[in-house]
Amino acid sequence: MKYFVLGAGSWGCTIAQLLKENGREVLLWAHNRELAERLNRQKRMPHVPDIELRVDVTDDISLGKEFDVLVIATPVQYIRSVLERIDFTPKVVLNLSKGIEIGTGKRVSEIVGEFFKTEYAVLSGPSHAEEVARKLPTAVVVCGARSEEFQRDFSNDYFRVYTHDDVVGVELAGALKNIIAIAAGILDGIGGWDNAKAALITRGLYEMMKFGLQFGAKPVTFMGLAGLGDLVVTCNSKHSRNRRYGEMLTKEFDPIQLLEASTEVVEGAYTCKAVIERFGSVIDMPITKEVYEIIYHRKHPIDSIRTLMSRSLKMEFPNLGGTV
Amino acid sequence: MKYFVLGAGSWGCTIAQLLKENGREVLLWAHNRELAERLNRQKRMPHVPDIELRVDVTDDISLGKEFDVLVIATPVQYIRSVLERIDFTPKVVLNLSKGIEIGTGKRVSEIVGEFFKTEYAVLSGPSHAEEVARKLPTAVVVCGARSEEFQRDFSNDYFRVYTHDDVVGVELAGALKNIIAIAAGILDGIGGWDNAKAALITRGLYEMMKFGLQFGAKPVTFMGLAGLGDLVVTCNSKHSRNRRYGEMLTKEFDPIQLLEASTEVVEGAYTCKAVIERFGSVIDMPITKEVYEIIYHRKHPIDSIRTLMSRSLKMEFPNLGGTV
Repeated sequence: MKYFVLGAGSWGCTIAQLLKENGREVLLWAHNRELAERLNRQKRMPHVPDIELRVDVTDDISLGKEFDVLVIATPVQYIRSVLERIDFTPKVVLNLSKGIEIGTGKRVSEIVGEFFKTEYAVLSGPSHAEEVARKLPTAVVVCGARSEEFQRDFSNDYFRVYTHDDVVGVELAGALKNIIAIAAGILDGIGGWDNAKAALITRGLYEMMKFGLQFGAKPVTFMGLAGLGDLVVTCNSKHSRNRRYGEMLTKEFDPIQLLEASTEVVEGAYTCKAVIERFGSVIDMPITKEVYEIIYHRKHPIDSIRTLMSRSLKMEFPNLGGTV
Repeated sequence: MKYFVLGAGSWGCTIAQLLKENGREVLLWAHNRELAERLNRQKRMPHVPDIELRVDVTDDISLGKEFDVLVIATPVQYIRSVLERIDFTPKVVLNLSKGIEIGTGKRVSEIVGEFFKTEYAVLSGPSHAEEVARKLPTAVVVCGARSEEFQRDFSNDYFRVYTHDDVVGVELAGALKNIIAIAAGILDGIGGWDNAKAALITRGLYEMMKFGLQFGAKPVTFMGLAGLGDLVVTCNSKHSRNRRYGEMLTKEFDPIQLLEASTEVVEGAYTCKAVIERFGSVIDMPITKEVYEIIYHRKHPIDSIRTLMSRSLKMEFPNLGGTV
């Protein structure tokens, strides 16, 4: 298939380059002329300047109609404004972006559905762009339309693609993991405790799964690359902005000021707000609740840990009845 | 309940102390008089000498008959020789040790079953002894007989116990995780790649689950504290001897010589051998297979990564049919 990649940030460039090296026809779209011209002139991968960018870049979004696949690689909060500029209907949309739209609480497939009645797939998993650009081993999952075609087009000896069939689960996992990453950062900031971090990842994943179940996601999806895999990498990575925000929360900063001052969107803080304010009374998500209390009600992280540790004693998986 | 704890290593001492602080009657057994006397005289926690040990220690195993619970906290390879010294039948056995017996391939519940027809439970999860001794937040799971009593007896404001009902799954997870920890060490030794490590943990957990399914374990158990939680802590910890052994394998050492020279048993190497030689033709465990090849056939780790990345393309969860 022929690919038109929306977004010339590090992930968009990396994936476009991978497709080109896999022998696919690909064109990269940048959101303004200055960026497109600079990339075409310098031919350097963003964030990995020692690697040559070998894909052509355009700022003319109308060129996308000549391609089979519209690949979304822009930050979620900008997807709507980019799609508004498109006056053709793509054959198939492949989304690479993780998160939900802050204003509407929508997943990317829902945003795309407002613009096009077309085929849709999502590719996700633990995939720092820099490591993929350097051809280090990476495994991801693709769900939705034409997943086997995408699997063949993207896979190579350093990028291994699995197929699965749960678009909702993959999209929710990609958004919810940012909440747990904030909590991981808080733990790192307090003490870097190994036992607590492992318990957080385990119980956090279970919360994500419980939330997903309410929206028709499959529990097993959360055990996969888009769930557990991405959660592990985000909770451990120095580069994760959500984790880093959590770490800053232990240093006596004002959580809201810190959020507003951040140059990048700390999506976990907004996702957490949406989850608790809309569904907090329906779905029991104790870790998410405490992240919310710390950010929006300035609860002290140590008090949140006390709250979590002193909850009534429970079965490990009551909601799954031990049958999954 | 009253507890007799077999094994005065760091975990035995830590758990005995926790029980005492929770108001339970507890006596600690050390495997020789010299160790018992030293602990009673110095009153220091092993490995955490700045913390006072406030539990009495005996070397008289017959005293155990006055207690309700026989707690097993000796390394798995010594359990048989310790149980041979016991001439009473305990009311209930609670196992804290992880791994399988190398010579027989048996789980701890199976070893115990050879000696006593009695109630049995297992407690497991991500729980470095030193952190528990320092009262840092820790969460674990208990399965089997009297699990709710154990949950109440052990839980406090820094140690949170969940109940679950899958002894086989918890025991297998505790043994199999050591194989994946060796693989994690190999990745650390090669390059410390984040994407690959997250993929390893995710796909490794899936292999553990597939193995467990064959023996009646519940898949969900592997998502819990004894599975995912313990796997995460072991794969990330500098102190894990299995992970460290894997790291050494990338430094041109002879894998078998390194194994034989190790002062501590690298259980993952033996578990891996048992799994592949007994079940390798029945259960598809590609990561375990490569760890086996690296240790026992001196395959180069880089070739193993190539093998794993070039396997035929797959669904993410074919064995679970996407239904779990």
